[in-house]
Amino acid sequence: MSDIFRKHQETLNKALEACRKRYNWSPFIDNPSPRLHGEEKIRQGQAAFEAHLGKSFDLEQPGTIGRTGHEISPYTQTPLGIDYPKPDIEVLFKAAGKAQESWQEQSVEERCGVLLEILTKLSEQAFENAHATMHTAGQSFPMGFAGSGSNALDRGLEALAHAYRAMTEIPATAQWEKQFGRQDVRLEKRYLLRPRGVAIVICCATFPAWNAYPAIMANLATANPVIVKPHPNGILPMAIAVKTMRQVLSELGHDPNLVTLAPDLADAPITKELMTHPATKIVDYTGSARFGTWIEQNIRNALVYTETAGVNSVVLESVDNLDATLGSIAQTLCLFSAQMCTSPQNIHIPALGITVAGQKVPYDEVVAKLVEAVEVRARNEKLAPNLFGAIQSENSLRLLEQYERIGRERGRILRQSTPYAHPHFPEARTATPLMIELEVTDRDIYQEEVFAPIAFIIKSETREQALQQATSDARTHGAIASYFYSTDPDFLAKGQMAFANAGASLTCNLTGPMPLNFAAAYSDYHVTGLNPAGNACLTDLAFVANRFRIIQIRYPHVS
Amino acid sequence: MSDIFRKHQETLNKALEACRKRYNWSPFIDNPSPRLHGEEKIRQGQAAFEAHLGKSFDLEQPGTIGRTGHEISPYTQTPLGIDYPKPDIEVLFKAAGKAQESWQEQSVEERCGVLLEILTKLSEQAFENAHATMHTAGQSFPMGFAGSGSNALDRGLEALAHAYRAMTEIPATAQWEKQFGRQDVRLEKRYLLRPRGVAIVICCATFPAWNAYPAIMANLATANPVIVKPHPNGILPMAIAVKTMRQVLSELGHDPNLVTLAPDLADAPITKELMTHPATKIVDYTGSARFGTWIEQNIRNALVYTETAGVNSVVLESVDNLDATLGSIAQTLCLFSAQMCTSPQNIHIPALGITVAGQKVPYDEVVAKLVEAVEVRARNEKLAPNLFGAIQSENSLRLLEQYERIGRERGRILRQSTPYAHPHFPEARTATPLMIELEVTDRDIYQEEVFAPIAFIIKSETREQALQQATSDARTHGAIASYFYSTDPDFLAKGQMAFANAGASLTCNLTGPMPLNFAAAYSDYHVTGLNPAGNACLTDLAFVANRFRIIQIRYPHVS
Repeated sequence: MSDIFRKHQETLNKALEACRKRYNWSPFIDNPSPRLHGEEKIRQGQAAFEAHLGKSFDLEQPGTIGRTGHEISPYTQTPLGIDYPKPDIEVLFKAAGKAQESWQEQSVEERCGVLLEILTKLSEQAFENAHATMHTAGQSFPMGFAGSGSNALDRGLEALAHAYRAMTEIPATAQWEKQFGRQDVRLEKRYLLRPRGVAIVICCATFPAWNAYPAIMANLATANPVIVKPHPNGILPMAIAVKTMRQVLSELGHDPNLVTLAPDLADAPITKELMTHPATKIVDYTGSARFGTWIEQNIRNALVYTETAGVNSVVLESVDNLDATLGSIAQTLCLFSAQMCTSPQNIHIPALGITVAGQKVPYDEVVAKLVEAVEVRARNEKLAPNLFGAIQSENSLRLLEQYERIGRERGRILRQSTPYAHPHFPEARTATPLMIELEVTDRDIYQEEVFAPIAFIIKSETREQALQQATSDARTHGAIASYFYSTDPDFLAKGQMAFANAGASLTCNLTGPMPLNFAAAYSDYHVTGLNPAGNACLTDLAFVANRFRIIQIRYPHVS
Repeated sequence: MSDIFRKHQETLNKALEACRKRYNWSPFIDNPSPRLHGEEKIRQGQAAFEAHLGKSFDLEQPGTIGRTGHEISPYTQTPLGIDYPKPDIEVLFKAAGKAQESWQEQSVEERCGVLLEILTKLSEQAFENAHATMHTAGQSFPMGFAGSGSNALDRGLEALAHAYRAMTEIPATAQWEKQFGRQDVRLEKRYLLRPRGVAIVICCATFPAWNAYPAIMANLATANPVIVKPHPNGILPMAIAVKTMRQVLSELGHDPNLVTLAPDLADAPITKELMTHPATKIVDYTGSARFGTWIEQNIRNALVYTETAGVNSVVLESVDNLDATLGSIAQTLCLFSAQMCTSPQNIHIPALGITVAGQKVPYDEVVAKLVEAVEVRARNEKLAPNLFGAIQSENSLRLLEQYERIGRERGRILRQSTPYAHPHFPEARTATPLMIELEVTDRDIYQEEVFAPIAFIIKSETREQALQQATSDARTHGAIASYFYSTDPDFLAKGQMAFANAGASLTCNLTGPMPLNFAAAYSDYHVTGLNPAGNACLTDLAFVANRFRIIQIRYPHVS
C-alpha cells in the first residue's frame, strides 16, 4: 500500500461511511472563528491574499505565451491587478496527455492518497482563499471561508470516495475455469482501469470551488488529467488551488501537469476551444442554463456533466409558526444576495391566504410580513455584510433596474432593491432584494432564472394552483432546490410526490438557524439530473462510474 | 421483503459475488444435451417454435394498428410467415409512461425479484428460442441455445446485479444533525430513486438476446419502461421473450406494458422515430458501426449506450505450438461464419515468419497451415453445421463476391469462400471463410469491418509493424476483441500495453477447446468504450448507475 494512502486511509474510510449513511460529518472546519484557528492563521491568510494583489501569479506551468486576467473586486470595484499565465492551449493538452501516461499506471490507492493530501493542503489555505473568493465572487468572508474551504473540500472528498468505491469494485485480477467438452480451461485475467482523457472543468463566478473540487477529484482519482477553466472574474481562487495541487503532485513525485489552469478574459473566451479540442473527453460545467444547454446539445467528443440553474420555488400553504417561516424564507432570499443556485426565486402564495396554526392569515398580511422580514435584515448594519456579501456581476445591477421597470409595469413593487453600506468597503457593490408581486399568468416574467437578488411573490388562486405551477415550472424550466410549507398531511404528501414527479428535490417545513438552501456534503444529493437545471449530481456513483473504463487482458493459466 | 425477491435472493447474492470475484458461475445451463434436459423438453421446444410458423404472433399489447414482420429463415431461405403487431408508437409510449408510474413506486427488491423470475421463465424457453434464433439469426442450434439462452440470461442477470448494487448504495432515509450557532438542527431525509423514462432497446440481427437482455434488465431494474425494437429479421426471438416478460409481469400484479415490442420492416424502419420521441430517455443500441455513430452523434434527448463493431485483429509473433494456435484461430474464423462482434478479421503475420518453440517458420508455411486449418473445418461435414451455422443476411454473400473481386485485383486469394452442404437444411444459406492476403499498405481494404466470413492475412515487414498496425487500427477504427500470440516476454508485455493504450481488450496466447472469442458473463468486460466499437460495457457500474436518479425530500425531525 502506498504511504500517502496509509496516511489518509482513515479519513477516506470515514468519508465512505458518511456517504453510505449520509449523516453529518466533515474532517474540515467550516467556521472561521479565531477561537478555533487562532488569530495568527487568520492574519497569515489575509497577508497571503494581499501578497497576490498587483502581481503576476506564477504557476510554473508549460505553454505560457503571455499574461491574461482582469478581475475586479465586488468589494472595492477596482481591479485586483493580478495577471496569470496565458496558455498555449495545444501545449497544455500535450502536457496533460503526457501526465496521464504515468498517472494512469499508479494504483488507485496512490492516486487517492495523493488527492487526500491535496485536500488537506487546500484546507490549510482556507483563509487565503476566503479572501480570494470574497474579492472575486463577492461572497462574505465567512461564506468564502466555508464555500471555498470546508464545504467545497467536503464535496471533493465525497466525489473522491465515490470514485474510490467505483474503482475498487473491480478486482485487479481473476482466475476463471470452465469445462469445454471434457477439457478444463483455466484463464488468468487482468483488469486495467483506464481514464478517458483530458477533462475540462469549467468553474462558475459565484462559487468557484464548490463544484470544481468534486469534478477535479472525480477526474484525477480516475486518472483523467484536468485543465481548469476559471470564470474570467474568478481566477484567483482557482489559481491558488491549482498551484497547491501542482506543488503537492510534484512533491509526491508526480507530474504537476495533471492539473493546469487556462484563464481567459470575458471578451476573449477560450471555453469552446477547450471543450471541442479532440483530446477533450470529459467536460464538467457549472454556470448559466443557456451555455449549459448549448454544451449538452453540442459537445459530442466528451462526456458532459452540468450543473446550471432553474427557477427555485417556495410554495407556502400552511405553517405552525408564521414568523419563523417567513424569517427563514427572508433569510434565504438575502443570503449572498440570492446569488446561489439554491436560492429561491418564485414564492407562491394562495390569494386566500395561508393557514397558521389553524387560523387563516390573509394573503396581504403574509406578504407584508415577508417584506418586513427582508427589510429588517437589510437594515441590520451589523449583520448585513456577512448576510448579503456583495454583488458578483455588474450585470445583476442591470437586471435589478430592468426588473424594477417590469415590476412597475406588469406587477407591483413590494420592495425596492437598495444597496446597504458595507462598514469596511464603502465602494462595495451591494444590493438587497427587489420584491415584485406577480399574477400566476405572468409566466413570461418568472419562468426563467434572473441572476440577481429578485424575488417574485406569485399570487395563486388556490393552493393547488400554487403547487401545480411550482412543480410544472421545475419540470419545464428546472429547479435545483424547492421549498414547501404545509401542515396538512394530505397536501404535504401530495406536494412531495408532485415535486418528485417533476424531478425536483424538496425541503419541507424547515425553519430555524440552518439556511434553507444549505446543501450538506455526504448527505444531500445536489441536482437530480431529471429537470433542466443540470444533468449530473454532485455526487453519486453516476458522477464517477463512467469517467474510467475497464480493459482486460486474459491468458492461459500456467500452473 | 417481497416474496418474489426472497425466492431468488440466493441467486442474486451469488451473481453479486461472481461479479466481484469474476470467476466462472452460472445458474443456467448452456449445453442443450438431452442428458441434461431430457428428450421431452427438447421436443417441446421445437414444437413450440414450429407452432409459431405461419401464424399471427399475439402479444396482447396496446396500440396494435395492423400486422407487420417479414422474416426469412437463413436455413430454408423461405419466409417464416409470422406476423406481429404493428404498433401505434404514440400508444406504446403512453402505455409505457403509465406503467412507469406504478413500477417506480415498487421497492428495489420487488423489481429485482420480478426480473429474476422473468430470467427464470426465459431460461425455460431456451429450446424454443434456440430454434427461433436459428431461423432468424442463422445461428447453429447449440449456439442459439446458449446465445439466446444461458449466455444472454447470464448477461441479463449480471446487469441486474450491477443495478441492484448501484441502487442499494443509497439508503432510503437518513438522519442528519448539525449545530448552527448554538442550536442543533435535526433533519430527516428521504431519498427516492427515480427512472429517467422510456428506454428503447435496439437489437441486432445475429445475436438478438445477448445485448438486449442486459439492457432490458438494467432498464427495468432501475424502473425505466422498455420498448424493444427487434431487427426486422430477428423479431421472433424477442417476441417470444417479450411475451414471457409481459406474462410474468401480469401474473405478479404489475403492468405488462413495462415491456412492449415495436417490430418493423427493413424497408419501413421506425428506429429513428422511436429514438427521437421526446419521451425517450435511454437508447441501448447493438448493430452496425455506421448507425451506432449516427446515434452517438445525433440523439440528444437520451442517454446512449452502444455496442457496434470494429476491426478485430490477431497479431501472430511467436508460439509454442503452431498447430494448436492456428487451429484455434481457424476455429474462431469459422465459428458462426465470423458473424460475431468478437470474430477476428485482420491477421497480422510478419513477412519474416514466426518463431515456433525457438525455430523460425517461414511466413508462407504459417499462412498455408492456417488456410489448411480452415479447410479441414470446412470439409468436416459432421461438424460444419454446428460450427458455421448459416449466413444471416443476403448482404454477406454480396460482400463475399465483392471482396473476392477486390482480393483478386489487389491482393491474393488464399482461400475461396464455398458453401457447405447442411445435412438437414439443403437450402441453407452457408459460406465458409474467404481468405485474402494483403499488404500492410492495403489499409483502405482492411480498416473497416466487413460483416461476412472474410479474413485478411496482412503481411507485415516486422513484428513491430504488425503490432503497431493492429493497435492503431483498434484505436482509430475500433475493436471489441483482439488476439496476440508471443512467447517473447518483452514483446508480450509491450504488446499488452500497446493494446491497452489503444483502448482494446486482449486475449493472449490462447489455444485449446475454448473458442478464442468466447465472452464470459460475470468475468469478461465486453466492450471498453475507449475505442470506436461502442461507448458502453456490458456490464459495469457505468452501464447502470446513470439509468436512475436520486430525488431527496428533507424535513425537520419531530421528536
